[in-house]
Amino acid sequence: MRRILAHTFTSVSLAAILGIPSPAVAQTDPLASWNDGAAKKALVEFVRATTTQGSATFVPAAERIATFDQDGTLWVEQPMYAQVVYCLERVPALVKAKPELANVEPFKTVMTGDRAAIAKLPKEDLYKILGATLSGMTVEQFQSEVKQWLASARDPRWKRRYTELTYLPMMQVLEYLRANGYKTYIVTGGGQDFVRVYAQDVYGIPPEQVVGTAGGVKYEYGKTGRPFLTKEPKLLLNDNDAGKVEGIHLVIGRRPYAAFGNSTGDQQMLEYTRAGSGARLEMLVLHDDADREYAYGPAQGLPVTKVGVFTPALFAEAKKNGWVVISMKNDWNRIFAFDKSVAKR
Amino acid sequence: MRRILAHTFTSVSLAAILGIPSPAVAQTDPLASWNDGAAKKALVEFVRATTTQGSATFVPAAERIATFDQDGTLWVEQPMYAQVVYCLERVPALVKAKPELANVEPFKTVMTGDRAAIAKLPKEDLYKILGATLSGMTVEQFQSEVKQWLASARDPRWKRRYTELTYLPMMQVLEYLRANGYKTYIVTGGGQDFVRVYAQDVYGIPPEQVVGTAGGVKYEYGKTGRPFLTKEPKLLLNDNDAGKVEGIHLVIGRRPYAAFGNSTGDQQMLEYTRAGSGARLEMLVLHDDADREYAYGPAQGLPVTKVGVFTPALFAEAKKNGWVVISMKNDWNRIFAFDKSVAKR
Repeated sequence: MRRILAHTFTSVSLAAILGIPSPAVAQTDPLASWNDGAAKKALVEFVRATTTQGSATFVPAAERIATFDQDGTLWVEQPMYAQVVYCLERVPALVKAKPELANVEPFKTVMTGDRAAIAKLPKEDLYKILGATLSGMTVEQFQSEVKQWLASARDPRWKRRYTELTYLPMMQVLEYLRANGYKTYIVTGGGQDFVRVYAQDVYGIPPEQVVGTAGGVKYEYGKTGRPFLTKEPKLLLNDNDAGKVEGIHLVIGRRPYAAFGNSTGDQQMLEYTRAGSGARLEMLVLHDDADREYAYGPAQGLPVTKVGVFTPALFAEAKKNGWVVISMKNDWNRIFAFDKSVAKR
Repeated sequence: MRRILAHTFTSVSLAAILGIPSPAVAQTDPLASWNDGAAKKALVEFVRATTTQGSATFVPAAERIATFDQDGTLWVEQPMYAQVVYCLERVPALVKAKPELANVEPFKTVMTGDRAAIAKLPKEDLYKILGATLSGMTVEQFQSEVKQWLASARDPRWKRRYTELTYLPMMQVLEYLRANGYKTYIVTGGGQDFVRVYAQDVYGIPPEQVVGTAGGVKYEYGKTGRPFLTKEPKLLLNDNDAGKVEGIHLVIGRRPYAAFGNSTGDQQMLEYTRAGSGARLEMLVLHDDADREYAYGPAQGLPVTKVGVFTPALFAEAKKNGWVVISMKNDWNRIFAFDKSVAKR
């Protein structure tokens, strides 16, 4: 998609520079996997309003910031966040390195491999697992372990790499906004260091544009004669709920013009975006397609790993505030790049 | 300088596109305020090594990151950091709002206006003043107060705005690196929120490329029906010494290829930069020009506000590690944009 857009634009600019009429260029819809409807219209209208020179709501290029939640917004989050699966699968190696953990909860339960019991672990236990498996190594070691895991792990339903489970329509939104001068950021409750490992390859988003839950790192000039950073079990930023706005301030220092989410954990980011002046866009992905992906919400018992869901209260907020709700079922004619079937409505 | 470069480049590209030979364009030295010497040569050689296609040390554009300390590296830090002056001058307003502080140290001493006594305050007292004057307001209030102060405050020696006291040769380095595809970051012990207020106007560096000492902010959906962020007296990141590397990891997530500093507070950032593979550049500004700026170092009694200095130990590190020491006296033929006199050596 990026290549097609770049080609189209280059032709147009060259033609303009040379003062010759541009030849008929095949018009490629940058949002081809979106059905016509209110959601697609809102996207196109927002870009028109903020990028048309002379428009009252024109936004200078430097201020064009768009923020995207990841889990459930850019890729599949069911039945469990990919990063949580990663952490659970790191536990055996952790217990091998620290045998004293074998009889300590929650590691003991994880070591049984009993998925039902693991899913029932309280949130505090989950945090213990995350803290223990995401710290104690150098940043480089961690990056290499995550890369290795992403290459071999497969999700339980499609038997594909987690990085293949991105939503094609959202990838098109990322490209579309970037082609219109927007800087795209991920603002995720997931680990900043984790997502940065693959964000460039998967989303075209460089590490410095990933804001996430961040643990401390410690700088040491090691005995090896080489300085290194070690990941510490210390929480610097919980990038969920109000923490998303605080993380945006810390790392970006600007209010977004567009924000995308799918759960209560994104509500504050959308409120903060909405509160800015001029044309703003807030969108929420609603998972209502059990056939092609999942249908879930408050009615369904969600596993322990869910920190935010699309509640009726969030739905009411969306209505009240003019946030656009994206129906996966109705607004997206394709969900995944690997699935070529097109469901026009 | 930016306008000149942009103009030159546009001409060249247009000529290339149109297939006509480019007219003789006046060659403007992008580092005109640098005397020929080892420092200037190191800059030019670094850019050549990392941006020449096919060079063994070529660096892809996305990875071209350069980090700059601010105080003493990009602008004057004597006799006191501008931000510390700001905080001291905020104390009367603070005491007016909270009269109970009038008889509490260190506010009591600051209220006397006795500069010698203020300069003698221990570092802990300074932190108390910073914490109290840099928190308790919304982010927007803070930004507006800093802007107002910067417009009216004058430094004691040149009677100019602090933002005029930037070093012209370093402004040229920023432009030169950017013209060669580098993303320039400020990595400062100063307040991230403070520096972000003027970094775009003064250095051409957008807020998201300023890493600094950061306090927490708290997101609240106020009674006003509008969400806002309040600055809290809670330290998130002390962006000095090892903290600079930790801050680079937090906000940028990449190792710099070039790093510039002037004190022991920058040593770790330079070590970390140096430890990367390929061609790297580390430079330290030495303040050895008492006539045109200041000459200072360990021999001189430094005010309480100095957290890092160019010590003999740092000098030894520079020698050992191949860091380039910039002599303001010998390497710079001009210091400030407002001073047109040129001292060629």
